[in-house]
Amino acid sequence: MPKHALSAPEMIVLKLDNGYNVGIDSSKIARIEVVECRPFREYSLVPTVQFDPSLPLVKVVGTGGTIASRVEYETGAVKPAMTPQDLLELMPELGRIARLEVEVLFNILSENMTPHHWEQIALCVARTIERSDVSGIVIAHGTDTMSYTAAALAFALQNLPYPIVLVGAQRSSDRPSTDAALNFISAVITTLRAPFGEVVVCMHGTPSDTYSLVHRGVKVRKMHSSRRDAFQSINDYPLARVWPLEGRVEVLNRRFIPRKDKDSLRVIARFEPRVALVKAYPGFQPEIIDMLVDRGFKGIVIEGTGLGHINEQSIPSIKRAVELGVAVVMTTQTLFGRVNMNVYLTGRRLLEAGVIPCSDMLPETAFVKLSWVLAQTQDLNEVRKLMLTNFVNEINPIHTPDLYPRWPGT
Amino acid sequence: MPKHALSAPEMIVLKLDNGYNVGIDSSKIARIEVVECRPFREYSLVPTVQFDPSLPLVKVVGTGGTIASRVEYETGAVKPAMTPQDLLELMPELGRIARLEVEVLFNILSENMTPHHWEQIALCVARTIERSDVSGIVIAHGTDTMSYTAAALAFALQNLPYPIVLVGAQRSSDRPSTDAALNFISAVITTLRAPFGEVVVCMHGTPSDTYSLVHRGVKVRKMHSSRRDAFQSINDYPLARVWPLEGRVEVLNRRFIPRKDKDSLRVIARFEPRVALVKAYPGFQPEIIDMLVDRGFKGIVIEGTGLGHINEQSIPSIKRAVELGVAVVMTTQTLFGRVNMNVYLTGRRLLEAGVIPCSDMLPETAFVKLSWVLAQTQDLNEVRKLMLTNFVNEINPIHTPDLYPRWPGT
Repeated sequence: MPKHALSAPEMIVLKLDNGYNVGIDSSKIARIEVVECRPFREYSLVPTVQFDPSLPLVKVVGTGGTIASRVEYETGAVKPAMTPQDLLELMPELGRIARLEVEVLFNILSENMTPHHWEQIALCVARTIERSDVSGIVIAHGTDTMSYTAAALAFALQNLPYPIVLVGAQRSSDRPSTDAALNFISAVITTLRAPFGEVVVCMHGTPSDTYSLVHRGVKVRKMHSSRRDAFQSINDYPLARVWPLEGRVEVLNRRFIPRKDKDSLRVIARFEPRVALVKAYPGFQPEIIDMLVDRGFKGIVIEGTGLGHINEQSIPSIKRAVELGVAVVMTTQTLFGRVNMNVYLTGRRLLEAGVIPCSDMLPETAFVKLSWVLAQTQDLNEVRKLMLTNFVNEINPIHTPDLYPRWPGT
Repeated sequence: MPKHALSAPEMIVLKLDNGYNVGIDSSKIARIEVVECRPFREYSLVPTVQFDPSLPLVKVVGTGGTIASRVEYETGAVKPAMTPQDLLELMPELGRIARLEVEVLFNILSENMTPHHWEQIALCVARTIERSDVSGIVIAHGTDTMSYTAAALAFALQNLPYPIVLVGAQRSSDRPSTDAALNFISAVITTLRAPFGEVVVCMHGTPSDTYSLVHRGVKVRKMHSSRRDAFQSINDYPLARVWPLEGRVEVLNRRFIPRKDKDSLRVIARFEPRVALVKAYPGFQPEIIDMLVDRGFKGIVIEGTGLGHINEQSIPSIKRAVELGVAVVMTTQTLFGRVNMNVYLTGRRLLEAGVIPCSDMLPETAFVKLSWVLAQTQDLNEVRKLMLTNFVNEINPIHTPDLYPRWPGT
């Protein structure tokens, strides 16, 4: 692999059979034996092409992540591959589908995203929607926290004229198994051709390069650390399957929000950063709730057990939190299914303490939503009302038995 | 439904069509109209039966939860249904399989379980294993935290002479859809006939009453808040399928730990309660790590994003925690897949800060294991060594592509 001339000039980087890179200190190498030597491969395999001016314009917003980077073989640097020309060279098929315009908002690993970044992305999208020359928006994003950002944009930007599509890659574009191209092309097809007015995630539908799936941004979760089909809809069906070779969007879920007129766009792009997502576990220490309250947190999302429980020792601390004006909401760590706090004593006591039950919202979606709600109001009655309002299908009222995946060998 | 004479004498309780009960204050009822009247049904449908003394003896340990309770129609109280005669009346099929002996250790909702309860259950099981007249052990447990207790017992009790089987119910035994009987009978069959020397969870394998699945205690998770087939193996195959009508155990996973000689039983039944399970999210506030350290927590399990990440702002706090002797371990909130902290910069920096990567261990299992390890040693080098040791297959070295479930419609 090319040397990282600036960051680690003494390291030799080898690409391993498993696709990962390993760095070796060159001062510790006693001998290098050449087993096989191949001729130097030209960097650019695709001739420079021009975009067809008759094609619709898609705005690509760069935020970072694996999809937006490539190793530059001349200099050895890993740098954003985010000019329209870069994207066309990586994915020549794009030249038949759309013209691209790129704005690199920032280039960060997605674990470093914050509510402030969500606001910046939302405002960039809102500005773009106002333009009459743009027909779709694709956001390149790291996969680690992509579903959180998707949920944030879904609440911040409602009544959309076309799908706002988040896309990423689980394998970098210098690996033969990269999923970047298929995902990106599918994302462009989705924003142009899908009938949804929703914020969605578009990622591989299977481990192979056959199709992508479009997931509702408030109902999707990264369910595997490394698979290409890591993203899955939870408590809802994927909105669509995209066949990139055919350029076709196959709608799978009829309960989608349709495209709306541009003028009806609703933008509320603020998020309260003093919200915590707290997981319940046996022996959970109620002092954690007390500490958050005492340090001025405005909201606490509990990822409870089962139908929405936490140990009874925590109830006085939760009661105190609510009395001091902190919003406490309940979700379930089972991920699948719905919170129902009327069945067992613990649930009823938590409701009495003022906990807001979040139905079948994912814990991550409830976290994002509470952050969005608390930026609008800190009146707990209003917070409750907004948390229980179904804005963008973050609550699915209809669970059919087949919404639960089938585990292998069972 | 019978009145709760002691707790709520003024309430009339109705069983609704959906199976749940609703209480109505009798002082607010203006008129009751009798639509249909059926003759009084005798409480006990099964004649009192005796256990066949030639059958093997199974010890049932009661800890609470839905499976261990029933409505007593004479007095109206919900009370533990945990005498051998109770169990036989509820499940007459048991009379052909085993003799039962019951010990009610406690009767708590499983969200109120603590590491101290794990210790008590483990010691009770260890005492029972010493007895030559007992051929199997079944533990009745609430489902909310059953997988945590299963993991705790798996670490506390190694080299087992027969499977230690945790069993519960998602629907109470006063509902037509109860899963209590099928699960309980399957659990008794498992402890007597399965070839495993492991702590396992035995619960419904499908939504209907066909078979149960036996899951390895360290690899199982409640994945749905209400379905009968809520429990699923993650990053591993279920150990077996149990056909209760045939009394048959069908082994599904050949990588099981076989039964061991009684004398080789290894008991380490202590758990450190000052351990926290902390979930990473965008904008995660590093002060949460600082607060836990300052309040004397001994261990922190991070449920990170993707391959095992948390925001870079938290790295100094994590470094400080490790420097002050607090064990910090990393798992992934994707649940499926493995932590790999060598791929991206954030992972490498976390490793440098002293974070211990937990491979494909579930966050909940890593939490229980760290609590178990810290009760043995607080030397961080020792803690690291023990966390990375694969004691009871809590780490699965072999992930095949089909270990990931298939989502409907995809």
